[in-house]
Amino acid sequence: MNLPSLRLKSNSDRRLKGGHLWVFSNEVDIAQTPLTALQAGQEVVIETAQGKPLGLATVSPNNLICARLHSRDTSHTLDKPLLVHRFKIALSLREKLFDKPFYRLVYGDSDLLPGLVIDRFGDYFVVQISTPGMEQVREAVVEALAQVFRPAGVLFKNDNAARTQEGLPPYVEVAHGDVPERVELEENGVRFEAPVWYGQKTGWFYDHRMNRARLAPYVDGKRVLDLYSYIGGWGVQAAVFGASEVMCVDSSAPALDLVEHNAQLNGVAEKMTVVEGDVMDALRELKSAGEKFDVVIADPPAFIKKRKDVRNGEAAYRRLNEQAMRMLNKDGILVSASCSMHLAEDSLRDILLASSRHLDRHLVIAERGFQGADHPLHPAIPETGYIKAYFCRVLPV
Amino acid sequence: MNLPSLRLKSNSDRRLKGGHLWVFSNEVDIAQTPLTALQAGQEVVIETAQGKPLGLATVSPNNLICARLHSRDTSHTLDKPLLVHRFKIALSLREKLFDKPFYRLVYGDSDLLPGLVIDRFGDYFVVQISTPGMEQVREAVVEALAQVFRPAGVLFKNDNAARTQEGLPPYVEVAHGDVPERVELEENGVRFEAPVWYGQKTGWFYDHRMNRARLAPYVDGKRVLDLYSYIGGWGVQAAVFGASEVMCVDSSAPALDLVEHNAQLNGVAEKMTVVEGDVMDALRELKSAGEKFDVVIADPPAFIKKRKDVRNGEAAYRRLNEQAMRMLNKDGILVSASCSMHLAEDSLRDILLASSRHLDRHLVIAERGFQGADHPLHPAIPETGYIKAYFCRVLPV
Repeated sequence: MNLPSLRLKSNSDRRLKGGHLWVFSNEVDIAQTPLTALQAGQEVVIETAQGKPLGLATVSPNNLICARLHSRDTSHTLDKPLLVHRFKIALSLREKLFDKPFYRLVYGDSDLLPGLVIDRFGDYFVVQISTPGMEQVREAVVEALAQVFRPAGVLFKNDNAARTQEGLPPYVEVAHGDVPERVELEENGVRFEAPVWYGQKTGWFYDHRMNRARLAPYVDGKRVLDLYSYIGGWGVQAAVFGASEVMCVDSSAPALDLVEHNAQLNGVAEKMTVVEGDVMDALRELKSAGEKFDVVIADPPAFIKKRKDVRNGEAAYRRLNEQAMRMLNKDGILVSASCSMHLAEDSLRDILLASSRHLDRHLVIAERGFQGADHPLHPAIPETGYIKAYFCRVLPV
Repeated sequence: MNLPSLRLKSNSDRRLKGGHLWVFSNEVDIAQTPLTALQAGQEVVIETAQGKPLGLATVSPNNLICARLHSRDTSHTLDKPLLVHRFKIALSLREKLFDKPFYRLVYGDSDLLPGLVIDRFGDYFVVQISTPGMEQVREAVVEALAQVFRPAGVLFKNDNAARTQEGLPPYVEVAHGDVPERVELEENGVRFEAPVWYGQKTGWFYDHRMNRARLAPYVDGKRVLDLYSYIGGWGVQAAVFGASEVMCVDSSAPALDLVEHNAQLNGVAEKMTVVEGDVMDALRELKSAGEKFDVVIADPPAFIKKRKDVRNGEAAYRRLNEQAMRMLNKDGILVSASCSMHLAEDSLRDILLASSRHLDRHLVIAERGFQGADHPLHPAIPETGYIKAYFCRVLPV
């Protein structure tokens, strides 16, 4: 093995030693080991200023995060055997927790595979690559999947924004076998079809699985409003869990078609209504029509994509949650979720409090939820934790 | 109604208007309304500096927290009708969430009943009062319980530390009917008897219910170590959920007797071992005996009781978690919990990370847990949230 070195400045090894996996470009001793001499995606040995190896990484020479560690053992190069090993370790946690093969199989840094996300839908695997290092071994990723799972199909859903920043081209293509336009999955005993080719992200959001499971006691016999419903992850489950009526609001007509299709799959189509349009507009119209709901679910797309958007984003969460709260009956439940990594849990809690005070309500948080166990949190990398959900009881004062 | 006023200084009404329920003594305009003129436990109207009423509270004139709001409606005096009303509202959330009558029925400020905690064990109710205001209406509390629930027995378990600070005497006595030494309860389908007269707090910790429920997939077929087991809340549930073997460690012989009794109640006695002694000593002995476990549960009593103890307390959590982690087999699960309000969630996460790095392990957090929904979080009062539990997967690097 003859990998080039990437040497850190003195004291720049503390983060890695403390458990983190990323190297920032200003931490590299570029006099000793110029980043410009490296190819995007190349594998390197990360060394301390004293030349002690810390592990193996792949590099993005032009990026602020210029290297990501995939192993602290310098004999573990990023290749098919390592991928097979990591897939098996990742699989053993998921198999312990989920009785059916529908989950996020690989979650990047937390599974020691930076730049790689794989969602499993039974025999179909949807792969997202976001770093040049992982792009280099994309064939090995597919071969390792083939060896461990004998999949019916593997799809590269490589059209995420992170790729653009890394200078990687967007593409969506089959890498192995065949992948239909929609694949089946089951979550909390409810059946869905997810549009893996054309949908958001990998086509499905496994991250809210456990939060959706918690809907059951709150929605039984209740009228439910699901805002930003996408293909019905929350709404259809609410209907199956016993809601008397569910209204799904989304701006995407194809997503709402799938809400109806997914409702039919579970025999709850007669309880579902879909409303196509901007959510804030729809809330205004529902309010002037005097509509009320027992449970409102507000799980919008990330309103805060970058740190500089925090202020505007928080204002958007505030507007949404306050209008959502207005739609509630007297003793109602607001399920307020966010997938913005840049929105702190405490900030969302404060937004809920401020909204409730503005409307002169007494709000308590019955439950707090996070991403499911197939999205493990890496304790040194806060960015690996992004989902939050508050189950709020909203009462008159 | 002729209640005295307690007038706030200008701008001291912001916290209450923002949703909080407490008044601090330095916020009172004592020139206008001297605290010294009030009796401990007296009910007052809280007013802004301009004389606008903000709600009703009861006072603790000698305390830093000198008043606690129980209603923003000044017609709702703290009496039996209000208690009945609040109990019914509290009950409706618990009945929605739990199919059997075993839960925290009233959780102080979050249920707008500051100073009052009530745990329900079927027809038995264990009441903890911690403020003079609630002590004043203790008979009304019992009458309201009698009216709503027709209980077999109500026990005042009034021996908590908060009472001493309020100058209230400690006592444990039956207030209604009869209360046996131990009462039955069911949690996550597992039966227990709790020592309501002589045990810790109310005799049982409902707060970890949902975290214990999450044990199931992690312990199936596994060897489990339960540290600070008390009467077996975690350990007996682990055994019922399919653990092959469970060892409970606690320093209290009566608690361990109840572990064995509770194991018998569920037919899992043959899987349980109990070890009496100091947990850190026991860990040392188990280690030198070469014992290993697949799952270790570390749910100690609060190591941090006061803010000034944070540093020492964090060191104690660090020692415990690192030693607990050492007991794990190669791919093990550490369930690390804390009930210290003063230990931040992020601090516990950092302690877990530091411990794992010190032992050269790769730790990820599969799940995060909090107190159950019968302990709702008041969003303006961080002190109402205190439980955290991390389900950690600990792997070789």
